[in-house]
Amino acid sequence: MSSNQPVILTGDRPTGQLHLGHFVGSLQNRVALQDSHRQFLLIADAQALTDNMGNYVKVRDNILQVALDYLAVGIDPAKTTIFIQSLVPELSELSSYYLNLVSVARLERNPTIKDEIRQRGFERDIPAGFLTYPAAQAADITAFKATVVPVGEDQIPMIEQTNEIVRRFNASVDREVLVECQALVPQVGRLPGIDGKAKMSKSLGNSLTLGASPDDIRHAVKMMYTDPNHLRVTDPGQVEGNVVFSWLDAFDPDKAAVEELKAHYRRGGLGDSVVKKRLEARLQEMIEPIRQRREAFAQDPAEVMNILKRGTDNARAVAAQTLSEVKGAMGINYFGV
Amino acid sequence: MSSNQPVILTGDRPTGQLHLGHFVGSLQNRVALQDSHRQFLLIADAQALTDNMGNYVKVRDNILQVALDYLAVGIDPAKTTIFIQSLVPELSELSSYYLNLVSVARLERNPTIKDEIRQRGFERDIPAGFLTYPAAQAADITAFKATVVPVGEDQIPMIEQTNEIVRRFNASVDREVLVECQALVPQVGRLPGIDGKAKMSKSLGNSLTLGASPDDIRHAVKMMYTDPNHLRVTDPGQVEGNVVFSWLDAFDPDKAAVEELKAHYRRGGLGDSVVKKRLEARLQEMIEPIRQRREAFAQDPAEVMNILKRGTDNARAVAAQTLSEVKGAMGINYFGV
Repeated sequence: MSSNQPVILTGDRPTGQLHLGHFVGSLQNRVALQDSHRQFLLIADAQALTDNMGNYVKVRDNILQVALDYLAVGIDPAKTTIFIQSLVPELSELSSYYLNLVSVARLERNPTIKDEIRQRGFERDIPAGFLTYPAAQAADITAFKATVVPVGEDQIPMIEQTNEIVRRFNASVDREVLVECQALVPQVGRLPGIDGKAKMSKSLGNSLTLGASPDDIRHAVKMMYTDPNHLRVTDPGQVEGNVVFSWLDAFDPDKAAVEELKAHYRRGGLGDSVVKKRLEARLQEMIEPIRQRREAFAQDPAEVMNILKRGTDNARAVAAQTLSEVKGAMGINYFGV
Repeated sequence: MSSNQPVILTGDRPTGQLHLGHFVGSLQNRVALQDSHRQFLLIADAQALTDNMGNYVKVRDNILQVALDYLAVGIDPAKTTIFIQSLVPELSELSSYYLNLVSVARLERNPTIKDEIRQRGFERDIPAGFLTYPAAQAADITAFKATVVPVGEDQIPMIEQTNEIVRRFNASVDREVLVECQALVPQVGRLPGIDGKAKMSKSLGNSLTLGASPDDIRHAVKMMYTDPNHLRVTDPGQVEGNVVFSWLDAFDPDKAAVEELKAHYRRGGLGDSVVKKRLEARLQEMIEPIRQRREAFAQDPAEVMNILKRGTDNARAVAAQTLSEVKGAMGINYFGV
């Protein structure tokens, strides 16, 4: 890792196994970027707890599951620092100072937060930790002096919030201690769920996990939403909103063949079963090595936890350095710590 | 210190030197309680920063000043653990979890917070760290398993908030990990300012610091608000609202003599100058040893900082133990930390 490389901070909440939606939206990208970037990959257990107090077992157990997903898709701990958020207490400290740099009104205006509050049905009963998590996220990002943060379109306001905190802090100490970051919004569209819903999630039951068995894959493709008006093979079919084609777009490397299939489907004369067969073959081929790597790592959970421990130790060292610079700039490192 | 002793958590924001109002309201009490209680005395620099981001020098410099005040009045570091809040990062960690156990609406309804927001003129621009400081205060209290928290009447809602968090946390882990505390409201009334205002504060210029010189004391007594209608010595005078008598009540050990003076003043025939002379003599006598101890400690600021360092190390060990129990109960001590 060269210190001249751009720094990425990214991560996931450990609230469930990752699925193909994550694969398309972020995991592939992380594998691709880990050679050219210094990448910090956060398992955000503390953030997961902001709306999961009491669900401790779920969060705890999914740390290992998410780590297995990372390793299975080819994230390499020698290139990417994989770490557990709650074990880097420097993040809580940074966050506690950042909370003083953002007003309650500003947090309440944050569109991402507004949206997520609405989704979760919190209304006025929002846990304070949930409303204030942009400050915690700013800590995650700035602790590693990340310059690049891969996020979905809907998360851009969070990046703006972080940069606001960065500017306010730097202005308060009259020094460029913290670094602003840029959102990296993936070009690829979101992978729709098996049922055709825009959002794929384990809780909606419309996802396919990275450890899916051949049977899971077969079943998922069988259930997959196509064109409900495409009743007979000879009927012209619709490609838009047809999940099978969306998935082929995402996973089939032979773009020309896929375009040909689409044209044929539109004309009529191409049955769902033929297209599904192609997709299933592609998914089986793609997921098999991922599942195998996942199963191999799952044989030795202690070693996976060791990987997380080493990553966490590395992450702590970097975060501690930033915290020390922050406290130094504030002049509150009374005993040089 | 026996572990069977009740535990006190108390402290001050390092935003200015302490004065006689603090002496009457809290410092005397702390000196009296340090033999029978395990006492943790917090210099709340992180809390001071919630509404002082940017005023770093003020906060930093007043840590030493407040420590000198403590030592000057007889708080004994062998009996009382004096420590600096920002150097106990376990408090930030606890606080970050407690934020998930309190709703934004509940914080906004907290009468102490409402009042302080109004006083500071924050309106909707409240820093999030200010709105959420009850969670931080709950961390301060529970980290030391404090059972007794000396507070003014106006701070009782903060103690209720802490106990709510304690109950919620314990319920969430189905175990009695955290300990509820009780407010200890001092029996003595608040010492009025020199100008007769109810609140004494350095910024109002109506206080007398613990390091006041003989001249400062003389001047303060001379300026002291009495009965504005008591124009001639022969006039009957009013004792209520008369600062000289309030201060005699607070500082003159000869209660009978003070009652006699009050009666005489009410009848008429007792001049302000006579009463003021008695008060001045008492203040000079009382403050002299405090000032001398303060000056002696001030000769060696490095030693005072060493006292704070040792206290902070002790406080950290206790807070780390509580944090470990909290994370253990949540099952998120993944590597036994």
